Amino acid sequence: MGFGVVHGDGDPKLLEHGVVKTRSTEPMPERLLQLFNGLNQVIVDHAPDVMAVEQLFFARNVTNALAVGQARGVVLLAGAQHGIPVFEYKPSEVKLAVAGHGAADKQQVQSMVQLILSLDAIPHPDDAADALAVAICHVYSSRLGRIASRQ
Amino acid sequence: MGFGVVHGDGDPKLLEHGVVKTRSTEPMPERLLQLFNGLNQVIVDHAPDVMAVEQLFFARNVTNALAVGQARGVVLLAGAQHGIPVFEYKPSEVKLAVAGHGAADKQQVQSMVQLILSLDAIPHPDDAADALAVAICHVYSSRLGRIASRQ
Repeated sequence: MGFGVVHGDGDPKLLEHGVVKTRSTEPMPERLLQLFNGLNQVIVDHAPDVMAVEQLFFARNVTNALAVGQARGVVLLAGAQHGIPVFEYKPSEVKLAVAGHGAADKQQVQSMVQLILSLDAIPHPDDAADALAVAICHVYSSRLGRIASRQ
Repeated sequence: MGFGVVHGDGDPKLLEHGVVKTRSTEPMPERLLQLFNGLNQVIVDHAPDVMAVEQLFFARNVTNALAVGQARGVVLLAGAQHGIPVFEYKPSEVKLAVAGHGAADKQQVQSMVQLILSLDAIPHPDDAADALAVAICHVYSSRLGRIASRQ
């Protein structure tokens, strides 16, 4: 599972990105525990104010959706245990916020992530770059939200 | 979410049954936390040797499967955190083990749960009775497994 941590006051700044890996040979409960522990470490390291996750519509079938849902449940639980509000964004919202249009392709989104965070290269692996795009989306969306609420 | 706790040496004996309730008006992360905390309380109270859950095939659509998967992920995580092995049984396996045939209806299964546990009435609510059926299925299946492995 990819993750990205950004500082969101002013221009987004990269703090950390990476993936929490689990061993596919392990039983599912053990893999979920590895995921939970890895994500908790990121939360403890950075004490984020908010979490943002992608809303999932892509699940190809019911079996896949169950598996993805299991991992997602562990992610949402980690946020709730630390009292961190969790925001959700549709893939099209992420693309719109980061690349300027909701049908942007993966390469365009990743290039914009690199540009926005002033990085020398596109963040790797892809899952981490995708997670950073969601984080940037939240920074931009919440900023617009704050401005709008002043009107 | 229904749960049932049985003592499985010899004839299964009922220790506790019930449901962990969550408030449908709460955000999903908060509901998953309520589920996790409630299940952890049951685990701490009884220190079970094993957990048994039903394998899910019923999810009506992808959205439903995602939601069910999220709750299930939290359940599997709770088992893994306590080092408790989690066994899975198909609904047909539960029906076969408890009621004698894999196409038994809900009423037959619940009546057999009552009979096997020597209860005055069918356990309520339905979700708790269903959970007890899965627990009984594991007791019977693991007993057969032990016998078979001696051959």
